[in-house]
Amino acid sequence: MKSVLILGGDGFCGWPTSLHLSANGYRVGIIDNLSRRHIDDELGAASLTPIASIGQRLQAWHGVAGQTIDYFHIDIANDYAGLRDAIDSFKPDAVVHFAEQRAAPYSMTNATHKRYTVDNNIRGTHNLLVAISELGRDIHVVHLGTMGVYGYDGSGLEIPEGYLDVVVKGPNEEVYPRSILFPTAPGSVYHMTKSMDQLLFQFYARNDELRITDLHQGIVWGTQTEETRLHDDLINRFDYDGDYGTVLNRFLMQAAVGHALTVHGTGGQTRALINIQDTVRCIRLAIEHPPQRGDRVKIFNQVAETQRVRDLAKTISEMTGARIAYVDNPRKEAAENDLRVSNATFRALGLKPILLDQQLFNETIEIVERFKDRYNPAVVAARSVWTRDNKPGVVKD
Amino acid sequence: MKSVLILGGDGFCGWPTSLHLSANGYRVGIIDNLSRRHIDDELGAASLTPIASIGQRLQAWHGVAGQTIDYFHIDIANDYAGLRDAIDSFKPDAVVHFAEQRAAPYSMTNATHKRYTVDNNIRGTHNLLVAISELGRDIHVVHLGTMGVYGYDGSGLEIPEGYLDVVVKGPNEEVYPRSILFPTAPGSVYHMTKSMDQLLFQFYARNDELRITDLHQGIVWGTQTEETRLHDDLINRFDYDGDYGTVLNRFLMQAAVGHALTVHGTGGQTRALINIQDTVRCIRLAIEHPPQRGDRVKIFNQVAETQRVRDLAKTISEMTGARIAYVDNPRKEAAENDLRVSNATFRALGLKPILLDQQLFNETIEIVERFKDRYNPAVVAARSVWTRDNKPGVVKD
Repeated sequence: MKSVLILGGDGFCGWPTSLHLSANGYRVGIIDNLSRRHIDDELGAASLTPIASIGQRLQAWHGVAGQTIDYFHIDIANDYAGLRDAIDSFKPDAVVHFAEQRAAPYSMTNATHKRYTVDNNIRGTHNLLVAISELGRDIHVVHLGTMGVYGYDGSGLEIPEGYLDVVVKGPNEEVYPRSILFPTAPGSVYHMTKSMDQLLFQFYARNDELRITDLHQGIVWGTQTEETRLHDDLINRFDYDGDYGTVLNRFLMQAAVGHALTVHGTGGQTRALINIQDTVRCIRLAIEHPPQRGDRVKIFNQVAETQRVRDLAKTISEMTGARIAYVDNPRKEAAENDLRVSNATFRALGLKPILLDQQLFNETIEIVERFKDRYNPAVVAARSVWTRDNKPGVVKD
Repeated sequence: MKSVLILGGDGFCGWPTSLHLSANGYRVGIIDNLSRRHIDDELGAASLTPIASIGQRLQAWHGVAGQTIDYFHIDIANDYAGLRDAIDSFKPDAVVHFAEQRAAPYSMTNATHKRYTVDNNIRGTHNLLVAISELGRDIHVVHLGTMGVYGYDGSGLEIPEGYLDVVVKGPNEEVYPRSILFPTAPGSVYHMTKSMDQLLFQFYARNDELRITDLHQGIVWGTQTEETRLHDDLINRFDYDGDYGTVLNRFLMQAAVGHALTVHGTGGQTRALINIQDTVRCIRLAIEHPPQRGDRVKIFNQVAETQRVRDLAKTISEMTGARIAYVDNPRKEAAENDLRVSNATFRALGLKPILLDQQLFNETIEIVERFKDRYNPAVVAARSVWTRDNKPGVVKD
């Protein structure tokens, strides 16, 4: 039986991944410092869905699936010895690393959040790589990255999977082909840390021959997976606040409570999307297809499709009757961009991506309807200033 | 009068830079946590030249130059408020950032040193950028980077100054020109942090319009500058130990004490070099030619020439009669490499680089002769393991 440690296994992607692997023959351990719950407290926000304690979650899973998931309360950024000892004792074949602060707006709010995001994400990732190197174990690292590292350059070129073939001209017009890491243009401190993670992975794959897969994921939508549906105490997070809520879930929430769908700028931003059910399938596919020792870092684009934000809003508006409100965009980015993304690897591995679909919207809407007495309108507005030229509070409904 | 804060102003490059700027009409402040002195204690090593306390150094400078340099004892990686308050009160026009752990071998010795190097360097650089952004000041940041981030790919192409013009092919063979950050291939955790620094600079230049110059420096040789020669208490560091000693100074030390010149591998590595006197001149030129707000990060190669290590050894051997000993190379790198580097910007700004020269060797040899009773042969061997396949102690004389 293969063993997998999930760093950040209490979070929005980590929790359903833990259950999916446990349901499919893996021995699973979770490492989490519960920071996502603490940030909820800090922001005065909460998941729309009521989240059971980690103890209740694991107990419920044992009840419905008969499987035990081990839990380690460790802060991987600040407790290196704890992390190393957990890896040493659990003896995982693979480690899935979700344990990073993952909200771009949160990372831009103020100096404290900027510094926390860099410290937490870079130290955590580096500690993991150093621990595996120090233990001398041949453990496959699967990391959740983001499509957002690339920025949006507007060329219309399809974004390849991690590496870009380019040609460099010599002094006499002779040409040298090169395969380079796709240049990044992160738009937030959060995205910057994921771009820096790539350099950590490149180094440790080359110097220590660590086996690493980096998954550049699109924006996740949806809430439940096959496994989280099995018991109310297994329910997954549903974030709709200005920091952690992602665009599609936020629109569905706004529609359900009779609020306008708030579109930033012209809504001309094109984004890559993926359903949470596909996230967990992709992670499993990545674990099942590891690189060999000495290979370069494997980089897959973990996306199902791309959509323009205003088109998403229109779809939800037509379906629900909600009106659309255009508000200022706090981000420093092009008003309109195209985005084409290759997801050839996961398709070749058998993934048939779930596309945006009324039936799945309906499931999300049902969840929103069921829990809408927990809705707190005060947390929906983006609070992030982004650049020093912006003024807080510009983005409102 | 322009004001400059020197982060790491007690170190090998920072100290002579502080004096050079103070001698040339700048109001200078130094921020340093004296970590380089503490690492000497940790390693049981010491500069061959006796280094006065920071208080004695500043007093001696006041005595010979009549200038006051302010000193702030701040750990910029771990005391954000202290750093921000010092910038707020000192009101510098420019900050020169040397405050990073700068020895590649030290950064590779063990898990603690790897983690310290990443924590210290990334946190320090990020804290500086956040502080300037938070204060809303238009301060020019001049950072000491390294040529070593690029690795040595063996193509023979000249390394341009930071950015590389490439061509990307579209699906129908149409071509898209791009100017990208020159792809890095760092060979140590230390070099990796300097590569990660570049991403921090790119982000803060773009998002916050910070004005940033990043200097990719070659290996420094020599000890004294015009200013450090003025008083014994102003003397600069001379490191010759396996962690901090750089190749040319180490050869000169070995020759002076009758030791063989220890060449790693075949000595086929080609390296970029610069004399310490040119380092301080280049920093001043960089300060005097800042980017404008909104410009991309300025990147200059701060090098005088390139030399193959075994040729360096031969030169010193012929001059001094020392024999050459070839020992195993702890680094994971090509045995032989070419290296061509553009230094067009500094040449255009008027720098006439000091090249390797018998007269300057003689000055270094005089210093070595003068202090050779302080020589400790036990610290010369490289202690770094580099990869987990290496065994400590492989590299010996």
